[in-house]
Amino acid sequence: MGSFKGHALPGSFFLVAGLWWTAKYSLWHATRRNKNVGSTRLASRASQRRLEIIESSIVVFFSFFGMLAEQFFAGGPKLRLYDFTEKHWEYLMNWQHATMYLFFGLAGIVSLIIHTTEAFPLTLDRLMMAIAFFNEGFLFFYHLHGRSMLDVHVHQLLLYAIFGGAFVAFLEVFQRGNIILELVRCCLTVVQGTWFWQIGFVLYSPSGTEWDMKDHNNMMFITMCFSWHLAFAMLLVGLLYCAVSCGVRSRLKRTPPMEMGLLKPSERDPESEDEIL
Amino acid sequence: MGSFKGHALPGSFFLVAGLWWTAKYSLWHATRRNKNVGSTRLASRASQRRLEIIESSIVVFFSFFGMLAEQFFAGGPKLRLYDFTEKHWEYLMNWQHATMYLFFGLAGIVSLIIHTTEAFPLTLDRLMMAIAFFNEGFLFFYHLHGRSMLDVHVHQLLLYAIFGGAFVAFLEVFQRGNIILELVRCCLTVVQGTWFWQIGFVLYSPSGTEWDMKDHNNMMFITMCFSWHLAFAMLLVGLLYCAVSCGVRSRLKRTPPMEMGLLKPSERDPESEDEIL
Amino acid sequence: MGSFKGHALPGSFFLVAGLWWTAKYSLWHATRRNKNVGSTRLASRASQRRLEIIESSIVVFFSFFGMLAEQFFAGGPKLRLYDFTEKHWEYLMNWQHATMYLFFGLAGIVSLIIHTTEAFPLTLDRLMMAIAFFNEGFLFFYHLHGRSMLDVHVHQLLLYAIFGGAFVAFLEVFQRGNIILELVRCCLTVVQGTWFWQIGFVLYSPSGTEWDMKDHNNMMFITMCFSWHLAFAMLLVGLLYCAVSCGVRSRLKRTPPMEMGLLKPSERDPESEDEIL
Amino acid sequence: MGSFKGHALPGSFFLVAGLWWTAKYSLWHATRRNKNVGSTRLASRASQRRLEIIESSIVVFFSFFGMLAEQFFAGGPKLRLYDFTEKHWEYLMNWQHATMYLFFGLAGIVSLIIHTTEAFPLTLDRLMMAIAFFNEGFLFFYHLHGRSMLDVHVHQLLLYAIFGGAFVAFLEVFQRGNIILELVRCCLTVVQGTWFWQIGFVLYSPSGTEWDMKDHNNMMFITMCFSWHLAFAMLLVGLLYCAVSCGVRSRLKRTPPMEMGLLKPSERDPESEDEIL
Repeated sequence: MGSFKGHALPGSFFLVAGLWWTAKYSLWHATRRNKNVGSTRLASRASQRRLEIIESSIVVFFSFFGMLAEQFFAGGPKLRLYDFTEKHWEYLMNWQHATMYLFFGLAGIVSLIIHTTEAFPLTLDRLMMAIAFFNEGFLFFYHLHGRSMLDVHVHQLLLYAIFGGAFVAFLEVFQRGNIILELVRCCLTVVQGTWFWQIGFVLYSPSGTEWDMKDHNNMMFITMCFSWHLAFAMLLVGLLYCAVSCGVRSRLKRTPPMEMGLLKPSERDPESEDEIL
Repeated sequence: MGSFKGHALPGSFFLVAGLWWTAKYSLWHATRRNKNVGSTRLASRASQRRLEIIESSIVVFFSFFGMLAEQFFAGGPKLRLYDFTEKHWEYLMNWQHATMYLFFGLAGIVSLIIHTTEAFPLTLDRLMMAIAFFNEGFLFFYHLHGRSMLDVHVHQLLLYAIFGGAFVAFLEVFQRGNIILELVRCCLTVVQGTWFWQIGFVLYSPSGTEWDMKDHNNMMFITMCFSWHLAFAMLLVGLLYCAVSCGVRSRLKRTPPMEMGLLKPSERDPESEDEIL
Repeated sequence: MGSFKGHALPGSFFLVAGLWWTAKYSLWHATRRNKNVGSTRLASRASQRRLEIIESSIVVFFSFFGMLAEQFFAGGPKLRLYDFTEKHWEYLMNWQHATMYLFFGLAGIVSLIIHTTEAFPLTLDRLMMAIAFFNEGFLFFYHLHGRSMLDVHVHQLLLYAIFGGAFVAFLEVFQRGNIILELVRCCLTVVQGTWFWQIGFVLYSPSGTEWDMKDHNNMMFITMCFSWHLAFAMLLVGLLYCAVSCGVRSRLKRTPPMEMGLLKPSERDPESEDEIL
Repeated sequence: MGSFKGHALPGSFFLVAGLWWTAKYSLWHATRRNKNVGSTRLASRASQRRLEIIESSIVVFFSFFGMLAEQFFAGGPKLRLYDFTEKHWEYLMNWQHATMYLFFGLAGIVSLIIHTTEAFPLTLDRLMMAIAFFNEGFLFFYHLHGRSMLDVHVHQLLLYAIFGGAFVAFLEVFQRGNIILELVRCCLTVVQGTWFWQIGFVLYSPSGTEWDMKDHNNMMFITMCFSWHLAFAMLLVGLLYCAVSCGVRSRLKRTPPMEMGLLKPSERDPESEDEIL
């Protein structure tokens, strides 16, 4: 993936994922808080489940598409791992990226199974997400040997976002539905996305300007830049959360709730996520 | 900030913040404990909220004043980040300090929004404080490259107080209102304040005596000195807590509570912090 | 244990243990979830306790057999620790392995005592398991000095599985019966088992091919390989869990439950694990 | 403290403290478990409180005696910190040890205040204990610069016991009265005690045999030896726990409880530790 596109592509995915999750969790949180004024019309339990299934399907699709792309497109290893004639590993980079996608794909499949059947406990989806993030960070961590100082540093900063996301997802196994943790994870995913773009600009600048890889001032600037990305992500996630909250409330005000007698069955829906837990 | 004043100034802020928080949390804890004897007269829910709003406003004001000062006073970068003619970063130090203030400012703004509207969940203020402390420590951590041994060591010790504060604030997201955690955070903030002063005295001694930056004995002494600062901060916080507790109790004894019938509405105040959580 | 067999043997043990635990916890979880349809016939409290006693006895037996084997078989130290004539430690490797077995043996003995008498609190078995894993990792950690790069790396990766298992077992002290944590521990134990086999193949390949111990590409491949082991273990544990769950449900459907009046006493069995806790 | 006695003395203190705590917590746990058969005769709330006061007084006494001894006995600094004529720090070792004692002394004083008045919340005693252990480990950690390999290693192993104890005491702030955590802390305190003795034997062997400070085999043996200390401590603590539990039960059987009517007031004693929390 040693190219600008190779960093911009996953960056865009994580950015979209972070924003999408923010919208989703904000909507559900607003729904839960305004239950008594009939907000379940906006996001019923059945529609929540349907959304999760669609999201998981998309994750599975892109993961397996990514794995195939790494293997067969543009000089991939075509499933060959070792060159026995010349005695060296083939395309280890592509294999590593495919392994990262594999874990996100597994997380997607498990999430699909959880929301279509009742085979697994519900919190398993957060655990799988934590493992997928952890595995991504784990492979990156042992990826950095022998690179130049600034290259190592920008990837190390990326690890903060990745391992942070893994840690928060693991906490969510025990505190599912905690909106604070969910927003922190969204925020870290957005940071991961924008930081992938930043890495692309630093290492493979499309404008052609090259960064001095050994200048200590560059390192200090990049560190500060990571803080700015974090602040920007917090701002973005916060604004989106407010927009969704306000949207839900204003829509609830305009359309008065139906009679309570009709609403009750759906409110007491036994398959609802936050009542089971 | 390579000067005595540059360390004494933030030190004084943290010292004042630590003592102020100690007084605030001690008062509220004493109020909660003595509820049955009518202590809500001393700190009603409305007055608590008013206090939080004032505190947040002050934090926001000083943060943005600090950012402006770093940018425009005494040789600041005046918002210029890169010198294209000489190809180097401008005033990275000032930019880094401004970034630190930015996060404290954001924490203040979020706290303001939380206590004036109901847009965000209440515990978000502790999370923002944890992130602000973490960001401060994060920038300091990558700040130390290439300095002399004792200089690095005194800043590393500072990181104990900063990251400790961030960790405790993060725990408070899940255990809000736990007086033990609150006092530990106050204590670490006081240590941070006094240790900034200590750093000023060690690196830029106003009396002119210079410390040998490579002497191992100096390092051993400084380590022990940090323990003393911690003990001193514990003593200070403990005494302040006792004073406030005693003050509340003696004042409650002197003025007998009003009739219970009048008090009940305010006791059951639905916006009270520790009942919502 | 510097041989292929010396790694394959513990590997097989951990693999079997991981799979056995998966089956056991899956069965009990399915039993708890289907309580209302009379599943306690399949795994009553008394049979659970009996199973634990048998398992602990086997653990104790193999631990002490392993200790004896390390001491007396094939050139062991025969309980001699120091050679006073030549002034050096004897067979430190064998002694270290015996020490690892000792802690697993202790864990087994404590588990036996817990499930036959009521002398210790129930959760102590998880703590002893956490300590046994921690001790194994602790001895491995200080085992690696002066070895070649790839040798160190494969053992470091093993530490992820060992310390991960210890950490999860420690969490279970506070969250006993959490099926997610139990399955994670099973998974990490299976990884430990298969990774021991992998180490055997890398360091003492039975086919005679030697790995270049200093090639960075080998290190990158091995890191990725660990991810594959993890994915494989997750698949294995997941399939086993599903198989057991389906088995329990299909068997419950075929044989309708006895009358409720007869079942109640055993359902309310006061010595049941998850009600005491 | 560079002498055999200097290590044997604190070792003996920690050993006695560990065993004493084991007996105390075992007795209280047995008392709580057998409440319904009138065990409160053996350890009433008032007697528990009295015991805590005596224990704290002893801790305070020895801490301040230790500080005085470090300052004034056998070549101590006599409160002089800096030699201005020769420009070097005086007796930094003694000052560091005195600082360690200071924190244990503070923990004792706070414990005294907690159990005689109601000024502080009850769990503060565990926090102070955690801080005292942490401070001990913190000072040891920066104590090791420039020593020989084996010397550093034996002290690093000690840090496992010290920081382990601090961590467990910190957990107890949130899980007070959890017998598992209490026994783990007792165990680690016993290990700390016996390991101080071990350090004395390794570095300042009274029999005169000298250890080769750079031999890697010695390091491997010492690591294993630490595991044995841990196993021994676990055995000791386990046996003591069993003995106390059996003692309480056999004594309760011999003397039948008084009538329930008489017992109830003391059972519902409002100052009881585990009901307040």
